Order: sequence, then C-alpha cells, then structure tokens
Amino acid sequence: MPPVPIDTPRLTRMLEELREIGRTPDGGVERLAYTDADVAGRAQVAEWMESAGLTVRIDTAGNMIGRRTGTNDRLPPIAIGSHTDTVPNGGAYDGSLGVLAAIESVWTLEDRAMPTRHPIEVINFQNEEGGLHGSAAMAGTLSANDLDRATLSGKTLRDGIAFIGGDPDSIQKSPRSPGEIAAYLELHVEQGAVLETAGIDIGVVDGIFGVEQWDVTIQGAANHAGTTPMDQRQDALLAAAELIRTVNDVARHTDGSQVGTVGQIDARPGAPNVIAGNVTLCIELRDGEPHGIRRMFDAITSACATIEAATNTTIEMACRELGVLPAPTHPTSRSAIADAARALDLAHQLMPSGACHDAQNLAPICPIGMIFVPSVGGVSHSPEEYTRPEDVENGGNVLLGALLRLDTALD
Amino acid sequence: MPPVPIDTPRLTRMLEELREIGRTPDGGVERLAYTDADVAGRAQVAEWMESAGLTVRIDTAGNMIGRRTGTNDRLPPIAIGSHTDTVPNGGAYDGSLGVLAAIESVWTLEDRAMPTRHPIEVINFQNEEGGLHGSAAMAGTLSANDLDRATLSGKTLRDGIAFIGGDPDSIQKSPRSPGEIAAYLELHVEQGAVLETAGIDIGVVDGIFGVEQWDVTIQGAANHAGTTPMDQRQDALLAAAELIRTVNDVARHTDGSQVGTVGQIDARPGAPNVIAGNVTLCIELRDGEPHGIRRMFDAITSACATIEAATNTTIEMACRELGVLPAPTHPTSRSAIADAARALDLAHQLMPSGACHDAQNLAPICPIGMIFVPSVGGVSHSPEEYTRPEDVENGGNVLLGALLRLDTALD
Repeated sequence: MPPVPIDTPRLTRMLEELREIGRTPDGGVERLAYTDADVAGRAQVAEWMESAGLTVRIDTAGNMIGRRTGTNDRLPPIAIGSHTDTVPNGGAYDGSLGVLAAIESVWTLEDRAMPTRHPIEVINFQNEEGGLHGSAAMAGTLSANDLDRATLSGKTLRDGIAFIGGDPDSIQKSPRSPGEIAAYLELHVEQGAVLETAGIDIGVVDGIFGVEQWDVTIQGAANHAGTTPMDQRQDALLAAAELIRTVNDVARHTDGSQVGTVGQIDARPGAPNVIAGNVTLCIELRDGEPHGIRRMFDAITSACATIEAATNTTIEMACRELGVLPAPTHPTSRSAIADAARALDLAHQLMPSGACHDAQNLAPICPIGMIFVPSVGGVSHSPEEYTRPEDVENGGNVLLGALLRLDTALD
Repeated sequence: MPPVPIDTPRLTRMLEELREIGRTPDGGVERLAYTDADVAGRAQVAEWMESAGLTVRIDTAGNMIGRRTGTNDRLPPIAIGSHTDTVPNGGAYDGSLGVLAAIESVWTLEDRAMPTRHPIEVINFQNEEGGLHGSAAMAGTLSANDLDRATLSGKTLRDGIAFIGGDPDSIQKSPRSPGEIAAYLELHVEQGAVLETAGIDIGVVDGIFGVEQWDVTIQGAANHAGTTPMDQRQDALLAAAELIRTVNDVARHTDGSQVGTVGQIDARPGAPNVIAGNVTLCIELRDGEPHGIRRMFDAITSACATIEAATNTTIEMACRELGVLPAPTHPTSRSAIADAARALDLAHQLMPSGACHDAQNLAPICPIGMIFVPSVGGVSHSPEEYTRPEDVENGGNVLLGALLRLDTALD
C-alpha cells in the first residue's frame, strides 16, 4: 500500500494555532479541563473537524466525536484521537498532536476524496490529564459517584462535564459496548527519551503499563542523634533508604521493562540531630504484564520483613487502588503501524508506554494501537516539551497509513 | 573514704519546686534562656545557693557562680554545676539536676560543717540549650561578634545577657584562664538509654563527642516515573538512599562508639509519579576521638563517587563548621567518680556522652569530669523526660563523693 502523505504544513499550522489558546508567559500551554481555555481549545478543534468533513457531536460525558461516513456504514467505526486538555503549565504536543493528526488524516482523505470502508471517528477525549475521565466514561468505568469529585478547574466533574457541553445526568449513555468500535488508534509523543536515545523514528507500542501506588508509613523512634548508640536505634529513615533501594533493585532486576519509583518522602521530626521516628513515602510500580505489578510488590514486601528486623521499625503499606490495569495493544494494530512505518522507510521499534493514555481505558471494549514519536530530551508536562517538525510529520503519516491498513484488515 | 550522704528529700524538693517555674500545660518545663521564666528560675537557684552557704555573683557573661571558701583559699576552685535553662517544652531534669545536686552537695557539707581544701564554685551556666554560650564565654570562645545573634527568646545574645544580669559590654572579662579552675565536674541525665538498657546506675563519661554537620545536595534529573526506563534514570532519591545507608554503615562498622545520622531530607519535586531530581539532606557525625569525625567523613565521601556513578547524579557537601570538638574527660575525674560509685555499691561503666554539655567548652581550660544517671526510656527534651528518685539520689551522692575525692587528689 503506497503512502498517502498528510498535509504537513496544515498540521503544523493547527498545532501552532492551538498552542496559542491558553499560552502561558513562559511559552507553555495551560488548558486545564473545564476551564475557559479548555472550552476555547475544543471550539477550535470542532471547527477544524468540520472543515475536515467530520460531523461533530458531544457525548453525554463531554467527549467530542467527529464522524466520517464509511462506504459500509454498518461497520463499526475505527476511532482515532487523543485529548486537548493539558496539565498546569504543560506543553503543546501532549494530546494535541494526536487529535490534530487525526483530524489531518481525515482531512487528507477528504482532499483526495478517498473513502474508507469503515466509518472513522476522531475523538477528542475530555479531561485526560485529570484522570482519563472521558475515556473512562466511554468504556463504562466512570460511575455517577465519581461526578462529585473535585477537579483542578475548581469545578466538580459533574459541573465540568456540563460546562463543556456534556450531560452529566445522562452519563450512563456515554459507554460504548464491546464491538461498537472496530479499533482505536492513538498517536502521542513518547514523553520519555527511549526513541531519541536510540535514534528511532516511530515507537510501536506493545502495551500500556498498569500503575499502582502504595502509601508507606515507617514507624521507628525519634531519638537524640548523639546519645543513641547505633545498635539501639529505630531509624525510620534508614529503613526508608533500604526500602527505596529495594524498590529500585526489584524493578531493575526483574525481567521486563517494568519500573518502580519512590519520588515522595517525608521524615519526621526532620532535624539534623534527631533520628527520624516516622517516615512516609509513596511507592509507584508500573508494568505491562497483568501480574507484573503484583510480582514486584510481593518481592518488595518480602524484603520488608528483613528491613524491619534490621532497623527495628515497622513498615505499613496502604494500596491506593488506582485500578489502572495494563493494556496490551492488539497485534493487528501493531502490524498496521509497523507496516505503515516500513512503507515510509522509518525506523521503528516495539516499546511499552510507561505513561497512561486514553487508549488504556478503551482496551476492554476494542482493539487498541498506539504510535509514539520522539520527545526531545524525553521532556513532557513542561513548557520545554518539544517534538521536531519531521517527527510530527512522520507521526501523522504513520497514523494515516495505519488507519488505512486497519480499514483493510478489520471486518 | 566513707560516703557522705546528701539530703535526698531536700534535693527532690528543689527539683519539684524548680519544675513549677515555667511549667507547661502538658507537664513539661519551659525556661528558655533570657525569658522571664529563666530569670525566675535563676532567682530561685540563687536563693538556694545562699541558703547552702554560697556567695553568689553573676559574671559578665551572665553565668551564676556561687562560691564556698576552702581551707586553702589560694587553691583554684573545684567547679560543679550545669544549667537551668531548657529547650522549648522540655523536661525537669536536663541541666536542673546538675545545678541542684551541686547546691545540695555544698549544703550537705555546710550542714556537717565539713570543709574542703579547695574553694568550691557551683556554676549555673547561662543559655546552654541555645548553644552553650555561658560556658563558651567562660572558656573565652564567645566573641563580641556573637552577641548580635538572635536567640529563641526573641532577644539578641547581648540583650539576653544584660536581661539576666550580665554585662555584655564587658564580655571580655568572663573568660577564666587555664589553671584558674582546678577541675569541673558535672552531673547530668544521660539523655540516652544505654544505662537503663544495661541496668547500670552510674555512667562515668570518658569523653564528650565532637559534632559536625554537612548540608548535602544531590542533583539528578526530575522525570516521568512511567516513561523513564530504570537504566536511563538520574534518581536523586535513590542516590540519597545509598548515601543514608553509607552513613549508617560507616558509623556502625568503624571501631568505636561514634554515631552518624541523617535525620532531615527533602526530595523534589516530591510527587509519587515523578523521579526526584533534587534531594537535600543533612549528615551529622559525632565522635569522641580527635580525628574520628574526619575519618568517617572521608569514608563517606569516597563512597560518594561510587554512588554518583551508579545513579548518574552529583553529590555536593557543605560543612556547617560547628566547631564542636571532642572533649575527653580527665583520668583523675574518672577515677574519682568511679571510686565514689564503688563506695556506694553502685554499678558503673565508662561511656561517651553523645550530647553536648558545658563541660565540653571548659575542657581546654581545666580537667573535666561528667557523671551520668539513667534517663527512663532514654527520653529527653520532652515533658516525658524522667529520672527515677533513686537515680537522682545516686547521682547526688556520687557527685559529692567525687568532689571530695578530687579535693584530696588535686593540688
């Protein structure tokens, strides 16, 4: 299948125009979900969707969906997209690239009057950064109880969804059933430095990591750092140090690409001349394998007994139960992406996604696929987030190529 | 030499009365140096000194000194004492026991009309808890420049010294020359649990630890905890964990009773899903040997190169230059204390003082000795600070016994 090139200048222009909506003084972008900037960004996106020949609707959860008819309109649609909300003072590529490249893909097909067998839906998921709420609603995992939660906008989820044109009282109408979507494909910036470091153009995501976090409390005994001999201490910070090493060791020395992190710690009373009696920290584990996180956690907890005994402390772990499950991508999607990259002579490799994405939420209801393009320096969620123009172009072309391949491959 | 028993009920009464001055709602004591409570406590102490037959004066640094004539009054005095200022919401024994037991020792001699060859000085050092300022002035290591420092009372050191009856403009008159004091002996609560754990009545301090602290800055790179593979991380908190273990290892596995502590840590940005890019912490090392701290520090810094390489971080250490030097006690004092304990059938052992004391400052100008009695649970600087009545009695009796022995042993 010969490549169908997207209109790169048009995609670049959309990216440049969208970043002006919510631009921050230091060159970043801030379109927190449910704020005026979010609404303004979505209005611009809807306008582009319509220009690209898409029929736009907002589902009850507030997701923006632009539909293009297929030659066999009874087939379920192939969905492509991402999100246009951002973190506080974020960047111009995270989410936006995926939505705009999806619009551009359809626009290119319109320009060339190229039909597809399947209908196509371009989806701009609402509030990805605040907890993937839009895609959760589409997958049926957002409950009415969740609607009272606070969001960074200051509004509750309920008020936020109403603010962007959704209908929170009919949230039960937003889920799509398994089979209702033929496949979901998302282009996204990597947010890591794996591709850049390896000099690879395209990442073919083999799966999105599940995530779990534990709040850890280590109880020792605060005591005078001068008068308490080394062998009479109950040093909670020493125990924490052993635990941090253990988390790193377990993540590093298990087969696979899993990660384990302690990024948050608090030691009390927190004086240089007092042994820490109490330490709280948070362990985060991510893995693409269904039982990978549990295996790592079991290895960590079994080391805890040794740490407790060696430091005369107690370690308690409370699971946050994020419920973010690993989501393998579908082999057909992976092949479509790899074939599209190959046809464009782009270097590509299989890799996991360590970050969460809307695709993850859709995995239980449809086959998913994800395309990564390099992030310079691996930086994201920052004004410094940057993906080079040639990588933007490659990403858009691979997305369209993969879409066309899926249109052929899928029933 | 047969024991001369102190009047324990009188000592206990003084302890009980003094704790009422500055009593806190939760049963602690707060007589911060240079506050009204401090002045009230000192006034009460002066009254008891006079009742015990001592002639009271305040030196220019604000130290309260009660003198009793010796039969050979040309001999330099033997000094005994401690301090009656406290930390915020402290306990009733730290410092107070040493001053009141010193007064009681002289009072007992007065009751029995027992002379000593040497004059005796009972010293209530000012502002021990704020930085051993009174004893520093007596040793000549408090300079006029220090007088502008702020103190917990809200007053400068200068105003505080004037407030308690000193003469800060004549601070240069407070130092005593080497040889001017025959010996200094201090009874203090242990502030640790060594004696209690071992079931020992009396600690014969062989030396007071020197102390040094370093502010440590570890620079890594903050990054996404999901998208940054384990082998591409620059995890400053992992480096901190290795460093905390190293400090503990070095302190534990060097011969001697030295201690090493990290009690304060801050990791940034401090989110569970972000690798820590920057960690600050404080290392404190204490040892009784003159070069012990430097040896430990050298061992720690040489491990740092390995930690930096393993974690791809940089570690910088800035010495606080506290200048608290180790102070060995004098063999004659140790013998006098051990003999006094033996005469009373009290179990005793040599041990270091991990905490700082006024005796430390006097070490360069006279032989020093220190007596420890058990602290229940090793607790100090807290309303829960407690030393049992029998240990109070033992401490007073050993102080008086050691004083009488020194009076004979010293020229």
